Amino acid sequence: MPRAERERQMLDAAVRVFGERGYRAASMDEIAELAGVSKPLVYLYLNSKEELFTACIRREAQALVAAVRAGVRTDVAADRQLWDGLTAFFAHTAEHPDGWAVLHSQARSGGEPFVAEVGVARDEIVAFVTALIAEAAGEAHQDPVRAEREVAGLAQAVVGAAEALAGWANTDPSVSAREAATTMMNFAWSGLGNLMAGRRWSVPS
Amino acid sequence: MPRAERERQMLDAAVRVFGERGYRAASMDEIAELAGVSKPLVYLYLNSKEELFTACIRREAQALVAAVRAGVRTDVAADRQLWDGLTAFFAHTAEHPDGWAVLHSQARSGGEPFVAEVGVARDEIVAFVTALIAEAAGEAHQDPVRAEREVAGLAQAVVGAAEALAGWANTDPSVSAREAATTMMNFAWSGLGNLMAGRRWSVPS
Repeated sequence: MPRAERERQMLDAAVRVFGERGYRAASMDEIAELAGVSKPLVYLYLNSKEELFTACIRREAQALVAAVRAGVRTDVAADRQLWDGLTAFFAHTAEHPDGWAVLHSQARSGGEPFVAEVGVARDEIVAFVTALIAEAAGEAHQDPVRAEREVAGLAQAVVGAAEALAGWANTDPSVSAREAATTMMNFAWSGLGNLMAGRRWSVPS
Repeated sequence: MPRAERERQMLDAAVRVFGERGYRAASMDEIAELAGVSKPLVYLYLNSKEELFTACIRREAQALVAAVRAGVRTDVAADRQLWDGLTAFFAHTAEHPDGWAVLHSQARSGGEPFVAEVGVARDEIVAFVTALIAEAAGEAHQDPVRAEREVAGLAQAVVGAAEALAGWANTDPSVSAREAATTMMNFAWSGLGNLMAGRRWSVPS
């Protein structure tokens, strides 16, 4: 078996074990067994538990960011872009619950170097959402100075809301990615004020 | 000095050190020194580093939940209640940055028992927001079955957005609690769709 393929199997097993048990409780024995290799081989390939966990975070973060980017076309309206990005985000987190657990919860349980590793990917998603909102705000000819600061806050709010909804959706298998994305759009685009008055957001054709 | 007062000083020092360094990197020597007491006295009062950290989480969580509850009167419109609750929330997190760091970031760095401890307080805030949205949705005579599930998701989104904004506001001292709450209301109540069209939320009189 080629080295890259073998390494992929080890990372698959590691993401599953780290995602379920957290950094400290995860055992290298269990990871090796699940990957179907010997423990020395895991150390030979990935050096240490710390480097293995870092490799898991990096791989899962890159996959998530790539999935969101791939879901969005930039030649459509801002709400359509947001809807497409959210649908891609929730579909990915639902399909990779252990990867999401590693990024959202378990990375922090490991402490500072891992938190910083996740922070890089999160910053990339925040920047992506910031650009999206800024573009829409620019179209609306708002005061640019005030807008820039508010846009930064709004992007944080969007990302925080989506993270919380992904965690919630993953605890209830009956919540589909589409339902999570719809709830998120009704919240983020229409707002509670409209929603309470029965004015919902709907997918642009 | 009475025991309760001495214990409060130890907890103040512990929240500051845990908030800045995280659970593992925090040293009991530094906590004792900052509290102006001997290390054996800290162990006599709080038993162990684990129990001390748990006591910090519990105290800070109760203070945050109490501040939000105290800020909200239930005899006003839903958006006014949300505004009051958010203003109280951001004022509290801004005044207690170390307490917020303990709850939002550092508790997770300590692992499972601490995560569960924070989860209890977070569930209480989610329940509070859920009741608020459900009441507003009830007034709007929406389909109760569909509404109940969506309300649960919306409450998660509101809390996640507020958490992200509190973290963001605490990294930039020029962002006031009022500005964070205004950004949050513009987002949560008006929605990005209205905001981009220049229709902002304003504080009800």
